[in-house]
Amino acid sequence: MIVAMQEKATEEQIQTVVERMVEIGFNVHRTTGAVQTILAGVGTPAQFDHKDFELLPGVAEAVRISSPYKLAGHSFRPEGTIVRFPNGVEVGGNEVVVMAGPCSVESRDQIFAAATHVKAAGAKFLRGGAFKPRSSPYSFQGMGLEGLKLLREVGDATGLLVITEVMDISQIGLMLPYIDCFQVGARNMQNFNLLRELGTVRKPVLLKRGIAATIEELLLSAEYILSGGNYDVILCERGIRTYETYTRNTMDVSAIPVVKHLSHLPIVGDPSHGTGRRDMVSAMARATIAAGADGLLIEVHPNPEKAVSDGAQSLFPAQFAKLMDELRIIAPAVGRTIAQPVAAAVAV
Amino acid sequence: MIVAMQEKATEEQIQTVVERMVEIGFNVHRTTGAVQTILAGVGTPAQFDHKDFELLPGVAEAVRISSPYKLAGHSFRPEGTIVRFPNGVEVGGNEVVVMAGPCSVESRDQIFAAATHVKAAGAKFLRGGAFKPRSSPYSFQGMGLEGLKLLREVGDATGLLVITEVMDISQIGLMLPYIDCFQVGARNMQNFNLLRELGTVRKPVLLKRGIAATIEELLLSAEYILSGGNYDVILCERGIRTYETYTRNTMDVSAIPVVKHLSHLPIVGDPSHGTGRRDMVSAMARATIAAGADGLLIEVHPNPEKAVSDGAQSLFPAQFAKLMDELRIIAPAVGRTIAQPVAAAVAV
Amino acid sequence: MIVAMQEKATEEQIQTVVERMVEIGFNVHRTTGAVQTILAGVGTPAQFDHKDFELLPGVAEAVRISSPYKLAGHSFRPEGTIVRFPNGVEVGGNEVVVMAGPCSVESRDQIFAAATHVKAAGAKFLRGGAFKPRSSPYSFQGMGLEGLKLLREVGDATGLLVITEVMDISQIGLMLPYIDCFQVGARNMQNFNLLRELGTVRKPVLLKRGIAATIEELLLSAEYILSGGNYDVILCERGIRTYETYTRNTMDVSAIPVVKHLSHLPIVGDPSHGTGRRDMVSAMARATIAAGADGLLIEVHPNPEKAVSDGAQSLFPAQFAKLMDELRIIAPAVGRTIAQPVAAAVAV
Amino acid sequence: MIVAMQEKATEEQIQTVVERMVEIGFNVHRTTGAVQTILAGVGTPAQFDHKDFELLPGVAEAVRISSPYKLAGHSFRPEGTIVRFPNGVEVGGNEVVVMAGPCSVESRDQIFAAATHVKAAGAKFLRGGAFKPRSSPYSFQGMGLEGLKLLREVGDATGLLVITEVMDISQIGLMLPYIDCFQVGARNMQNFNLLRELGTVRKPVLLKRGIAATIEELLLSAEYILSGGNYDVILCERGIRTYETYTRNTMDVSAIPVVKHLSHLPIVGDPSHGTGRRDMVSAMARATIAAGADGLLIEVHPNPEKAVSDGAQSLFPAQFAKLMDELRIIAPAVGRTIAQPVAAAVAV
Repeated sequence: MIVAMQEKATEEQIQTVVERMVEIGFNVHRTTGAVQTILAGVGTPAQFDHKDFELLPGVAEAVRISSPYKLAGHSFRPEGTIVRFPNGVEVGGNEVVVMAGPCSVESRDQIFAAATHVKAAGAKFLRGGAFKPRSSPYSFQGMGLEGLKLLREVGDATGLLVITEVMDISQIGLMLPYIDCFQVGARNMQNFNLLRELGTVRKPVLLKRGIAATIEELLLSAEYILSGGNYDVILCERGIRTYETYTRNTMDVSAIPVVKHLSHLPIVGDPSHGTGRRDMVSAMARATIAAGADGLLIEVHPNPEKAVSDGAQSLFPAQFAKLMDELRIIAPAVGRTIAQPVAAAVAV
Repeated sequence: MIVAMQEKATEEQIQTVVERMVEIGFNVHRTTGAVQTILAGVGTPAQFDHKDFELLPGVAEAVRISSPYKLAGHSFRPEGTIVRFPNGVEVGGNEVVVMAGPCSVESRDQIFAAATHVKAAGAKFLRGGAFKPRSSPYSFQGMGLEGLKLLREVGDATGLLVITEVMDISQIGLMLPYIDCFQVGARNMQNFNLLRELGTVRKPVLLKRGIAATIEELLLSAEYILSGGNYDVILCERGIRTYETYTRNTMDVSAIPVVKHLSHLPIVGDPSHGTGRRDMVSAMARATIAAGADGLLIEVHPNPEKAVSDGAQSLFPAQFAKLMDELRIIAPAVGRTIAQPVAAAVAV
Repeated sequence: MIVAMQEKATEEQIQTVVERMVEIGFNVHRTTGAVQTILAGVGTPAQFDHKDFELLPGVAEAVRISSPYKLAGHSFRPEGTIVRFPNGVEVGGNEVVVMAGPCSVESRDQIFAAATHVKAAGAKFLRGGAFKPRSSPYSFQGMGLEGLKLLREVGDATGLLVITEVMDISQIGLMLPYIDCFQVGARNMQNFNLLRELGTVRKPVLLKRGIAATIEELLLSAEYILSGGNYDVILCERGIRTYETYTRNTMDVSAIPVVKHLSHLPIVGDPSHGTGRRDMVSAMARATIAAGADGLLIEVHPNPEKAVSDGAQSLFPAQFAKLMDELRIIAPAVGRTIAQPVAAAVAV
Repeated sequence: MIVAMQEKATEEQIQTVVERMVEIGFNVHRTTGAVQTILAGVGTPAQFDHKDFELLPGVAEAVRISSPYKLAGHSFRPEGTIVRFPNGVEVGGNEVVVMAGPCSVESRDQIFAAATHVKAAGAKFLRGGAFKPRSSPYSFQGMGLEGLKLLREVGDATGLLVITEVMDISQIGLMLPYIDCFQVGARNMQNFNLLRELGTVRKPVLLKRGIAATIEELLLSAEYILSGGNYDVILCERGIRTYETYTRNTMDVSAIPVVKHLSHLPIVGDPSHGTGRRDMVSAMARATIAAGADGLLIEVHPNPEKAVSDGAQSLFPAQFAKLMDELRIIAPAVGRTIAQPVAAAVAV
């Protein structure tokens, strides 16, 4: 921490600040300039709020210097983290990985149709919500356990990994047998009890950035999971709230190179929530990969116009296949590969 | 819902939109202008997303007309809601009600000292956190059950009502015997499982606006609680995130008259979190009451410089007493009263 | 400026940074900690961008310490600035000063009616736009010079000072004979050529905060005027753009105590633009004064429903008179006075 | 415009609204539902503010339906606009066009070196500022006319078109002989006097989005230029202000597909201002092209570390050349071409 004193700070005020800094565990180095005195606190006290110092008499400004996250920081693993899944799929490696599927699991037919389509186009994960928190109490709330079972069955049948959203500590145990990756939604990015618990399981977690969260806060939330011993964390940019209302959120594509700079964790983008409009999803998916993301999370529905939730932002299967073709052109520009389409095969 | 067609929309496109509107339960009235056709959907379908319609061919714009909340809306109770507490205190009535105390319960001495001070100055509620979610996993996390017991003991001794934050469904039962009002924090404003559960208890709930929540979303979250049958909801403005960084948040004082216009629920302001700086709290507390709020939630600590959390935004007892004196001048400007200071009495 | 090096920065990287700091005029004090090295640059180089340093190899963070404004800073005039007008009115003194009138000058009858009403209720300034920049090229653009003449005539007849918006350097000379105070609108807050020119005139300037400007940027824009030798600058908070759309802007009431803390310049609030809705204006005007502002800028129209611009945010005369009565109750809470109503007198 | 009445609106209130709508030029179609009455105003009144209607008694909501811009709207020219330059370069055609060069013209050597580098890598335009508005009055303010002459001389010598920023009406005539395209900066996006004047010249204008401007406001500002008869307008996304502070602005990449949907005008991206950090520029430039932009505006400096302005966001020549190679891989994914590198040739 650096504390810059006001130009007219008295020696007594300076001494008071020095004492407070020493008290919480800093070694203090003092620089006395012609105009103002600057106090550099060296060390890593367990806990302090630099804003407390801004309110002391004679202080002009207090600035925290060391980043508040350690395990999530780039220097902890400069070579980068690769999250490995049982079937060999790797997120954070050379290949761009695409996770796709409907917003909600609605029925066996629907989820199977979705899985078949996205698998054929080159997706590696099937996404789908079993528990659906909705901003209105009068909306569809999800299929629950039955949805989990359908995801697993269809994932196994098609050879896709399964990712779904966990909303409450009580759901963790319920989900464990059925899924390959937990997804923490934007609204739960700072549900610290949930994060702490996910730190104790041994399954990867995809952590979405909150709608009003800074990148630093996203990394601090990841720190909660990492500090519990679960190092398999994938970050996800999904749009932040700004004054622009044409799109549902403003997708902060620059979060991708920023996270690559600050952290070793892989990051994917979610252009479906990032835009909220089907006609903008492909453009933003291309932008995400061109910016260097490790993958995508995309809503695809066999019949978006009949979807019970998020239909407006779900791609038609043909749109998704076309997007995958475009991504195959872009990936080499950032030195990456991406899966080829596969002939649809399975029947259930 | 209103759907405005593009100028060049074909009759076929218009028919498709009409059919979709009828399908989900609207009666459709069509207005054919020289330039464009407008379709007014009348009725109240249980569930629809107007954005789905914006993506249909030929549609220029789709606008939801009726507000998505019903029970929280002004017309549900035009006379306004008064939340009544066992000892006769009313929030939403003529008297401005102040809730004050430390961020966290730290010890018996600390919470008792805080309670004595705020009671003497005219507060009606003792606030204090027993479970503390923190953005860093390395910070103090609260006293838990022991904190709840101290709050109750000290509340009873001083004649103050007790309000504390609930963060998880599992804490509701634990808290019920000890508190007079649940507080839902900004991060949980859209924790719908928690809200739904709080709808089933019969204790008042103070619901804070999320850091990136619109006023409409705040009312929709209140709707979750109301729709469960718990009508004793108090809203709270506590600052939103903007690009201005000098203050911790930007306190949206205008939310107070807006809520008064849109809803029947009482609303209080939290200038401690709204600003994050002790030297700005009194100014914003005065502004809150001058704007017509029903009360305040303020952090006061017997020794803010030693507080384990939020010290920088906690008032010293003498500052709080002075603020209460200022509020006693302002309240009549909005036709309100406020409690007089009382001689400190009890000893524990 | 403080430069914090990365934990693994090499001695060579540190030396490069030191050399660059010395090169631009800093004396450098080095603090070598167990974990990282911190370089404190002391001195006041004429011009540098601390972000340049963040991109040097081995640098973790660079932080500017001294505020970039000097003349606008609190320490330049700790006793505060009072802007004095020819007729004895003072902005920044003990009395709260209210400036009121229509958005646009529309006709002699309209501006005279407005002036008579606001004068009677206790206003000291008549506001009104003669040149109107509008976001649509198809809207009313103002009466121009004729409007200026009407403002002066009516101001003289009623004993009100005149304030109007200047939008272009070419208008300064035109306006000088007719007005008592220039108003710089939010869109021109960073029109540096205009600000520089206003620094050379000897009439007060009211400078509005831009819709996306930080408080620091507002003070830096004031610095442009002050550095030209014009010290009579009044700041104005008028709402910033956020994601909340119910109000036209989000009025940042906390800017008032923040400016009082950082600067010696007086600050007023404009709740008309701050909210954009007539039914919210009075609540926010009260909040502004309760927060400690030196005055208000308010739109009042003799017949708002017929106004050619901003009718929706203009008060009816009776609403304004009622508001002034409320403010007379509030002002003593912040140790201020405010003008009493006067019997309407003049006829033109 | 649509006006939705409150559920309990009286017939008298409804009639008042109908009369006001007719008065300003609407034909009114009334839909009387079981719950509420909806009034659809058909027609295109020259000027009205739908917010006026929201304040009438009995009104629940008023919604403007037709977009306030006409000439900038997609339906005005569904085939899209191509801006053609004298040497055959087209912006908005099949080829992605890159404009590059330093923030400021500093010297003949500097601008010539920059031009040579960007030409060799495939740029078609040389950018550079001659007049520099700076947020601090104590910073470098540009070379002025001499800078314009250098741009022209070097542009001619290298075969690059010249684009530079115009900040004031008085500069238009001065610039006309020297440049190929005017650039309007973010701070001037709503300088309507300047826009109107640029509508009367016959040179293309690149219009940057304001830091707090919605996409609709950007199009409305373009309308000012178009309505003067100048149809050669190129839009530019350059980042908006959000709460995220790691990057200088948040580049809204989604503005690119949104503008393509709403308008016929070409749009380019400026990742230099969009991020403010050299190490993020290439990622965002790739994202911009992948999202479908017609081109880029990029700061490149022969020696960024010595740049007098914006050095931190300027690319080194070698970085720019590498970026162009990456863009050549991406362009085909969106069906576009981009210029090949050329052997550097000229000497001055």
